[in-house]
Amino acid sequence: MAKEAKLRRSARLADLALRLLEEPGRTFSLGQLARTYGAAKSSLSEDLSILREVFLRAGIGTIETSPGAAGGARYVPGISRERAENFVHRLVEEVTRPERILPGGFVYLSDLLGRPDILRDVGRIVAAAFASVDVDVVLTVETKGIPIAYAASFALGKPVVIARRDGQITEGSLVTINYLSASSRSIRTMSLSRRAIAEGARVLLVDDFLRGGGTIRGMQELVREFRAEGVGAFVFVEGPAGSGRVVEDVASLVKVEEIDADARTIRAVPGSIFSRAWPSSPWGGLFQIRESEGRSPKHDLTGG
Amino acid sequence: MAKEAKLRRSARLADLALRLLEEPGRTFSLGQLARTYGAAKSSLSEDLSILREVFLRAGIGTIETSPGAAGGARYVPGISRERAENFVHRLVEEVTRPERILPGGFVYLSDLLGRPDILRDVGRIVAAAFASVDVDVVLTVETKGIPIAYAASFALGKPVVIARRDGQITEGSLVTINYLSASSRSIRTMSLSRRAIAEGARVLLVDDFLRGGGTIRGMQELVREFRAEGVGAFVFVEGPAGSGRVVEDVASLVKVEEIDADARTIRAVPGSIFSRAWPSSPWGGLFQIRESEGRSPKHDLTGG
Repeated sequence: MAKEAKLRRSARLADLALRLLEEPGRTFSLGQLARTYGAAKSSLSEDLSILREVFLRAGIGTIETSPGAAGGARYVPGISRERAENFVHRLVEEVTRPERILPGGFVYLSDLLGRPDILRDVGRIVAAAFASVDVDVVLTVETKGIPIAYAASFALGKPVVIARRDGQITEGSLVTINYLSASSRSIRTMSLSRRAIAEGARVLLVDDFLRGGGTIRGMQELVREFRAEGVGAFVFVEGPAGSGRVVEDVASLVKVEEIDADARTIRAVPGSIFSRAWPSSPWGGLFQIRESEGRSPKHDLTGG
Repeated sequence: MAKEAKLRRSARLADLALRLLEEPGRTFSLGQLARTYGAAKSSLSEDLSILREVFLRAGIGTIETSPGAAGGARYVPGISRERAENFVHRLVEEVTRPERILPGGFVYLSDLLGRPDILRDVGRIVAAAFASVDVDVVLTVETKGIPIAYAASFALGKPVVIARRDGQITEGSLVTINYLSASSRSIRTMSLSRRAIAEGARVLLVDDFLRGGGTIRGMQELVREFRAEGVGAFVFVEGPAGSGRVVEDVASLVKVEEIDADARTIRAVPGSIFSRAWPSSPWGGLFQIRESEGRSPKHDLTGG
């Protein structure tokens, strides 16, 4: 009997983990969970603290519980500082492999953007970095930003909206803006279905690569056309700033400082997401950027 | 002490669940797991059978274990028949809402393709359907097939490769093919970086919508250029066949049978993936299409 109960307990814990992981950010009522499992609320509270420790130790986020009669629990995706650092150091090594240099000073990144193991951790870093800004929807422009947008979407549990370069008939009535590409100095277009973003939505802007920042600024403008709000911007890789940027406060994972196509070398470092505030949050080792509170003490990857 | 041990056991089980879910398809050696957790192999075997039951009951796949000294365990993603049926019935209801009808007889699907909860189950269905064909890489063509490709990628743990409509300078040397769009009767182009697919790779072709099938046939042709092999094809929604298809054996999730733009009605049913073999597999309630074995008894959603 004792053994039976032990197995039941273990199975319940694993099932609870699956349930929470499946819907990041969703609050499950403690009372509902107790009924589902036919267990006492006190046992479930104990289960949830065990799971919180397991999640924190695995470095994939935490479980937040709210107390009281209407108490509940939700999975807050994130990543431990240690795991994020290890991941980005491996990524920097990957990105700087000389065979990635393409004619014209471009860097081949498509294979990295195709790998689910990489995207999973990218998503967790985005979730951790923007945990405090309460994202409703993730916006990107076709094509290469899309994998990053879905990485964020899966981690945050929030939908993706994709702006198109051309007006596609299958999208219904469109909102179209023209914007200046800051790096190529040419006029470009992005369009989005009128029904794609709700008024007042809190939008996270993402892209694969940041050069002059024209695309991010274009997305900001597009978001304003919907009377929605851009609450943060994230890119996978940030290139050399060149003649300056038209946007600030874009979080990047990797910063390419120099591409020398002749010498076939790329120099890169961890991106701006690691030089921001990395406070000791209520949930321990996870990092969190609180842009809205204006805190930005400088930390680097090795510093405090 | 008994309580302590019980808690440790529960925590180990949850941690093991995270580890297996994180890398679908990867085999973890039992010996290695035993060392990681400081537990006996026999306890771990017991843990794994508890987890297998939890996964099967949750309808998200199974855990396969291989016996012997070199024994190991891996998470095989999938979906229970019940869960797949419920999901697709909800999807059919969604797809047939009259407000989705667009001018020209198109259907607005972008919001569905943006939702991570939908894509998670789509991925599991693809994983279950193509479990036996041993996919190495998932191929799609920009733009709307990309979400479906990543859904499959996350579930299968295999990378995505995206063919482009235009030749992009950042991709290096390209393989480009021209193909005939079967529905619009126009010549179209798709390009892929020479380094994107390895010779001999087993490629799953995916897209959002199937009309005449020209795009899928184009992908098949592209794959042949790489001396790789198309091992299956999947689309989110299949449209009315119209004047016939240039491809066969494309698995679809939803089949739109008729769009009447004047009456503002759409008629749809569960797609071809549900009319294929649905054998009782070694892992119980999960379905699996074994095209390679040539088995295709007709089953529908309600039948055996």
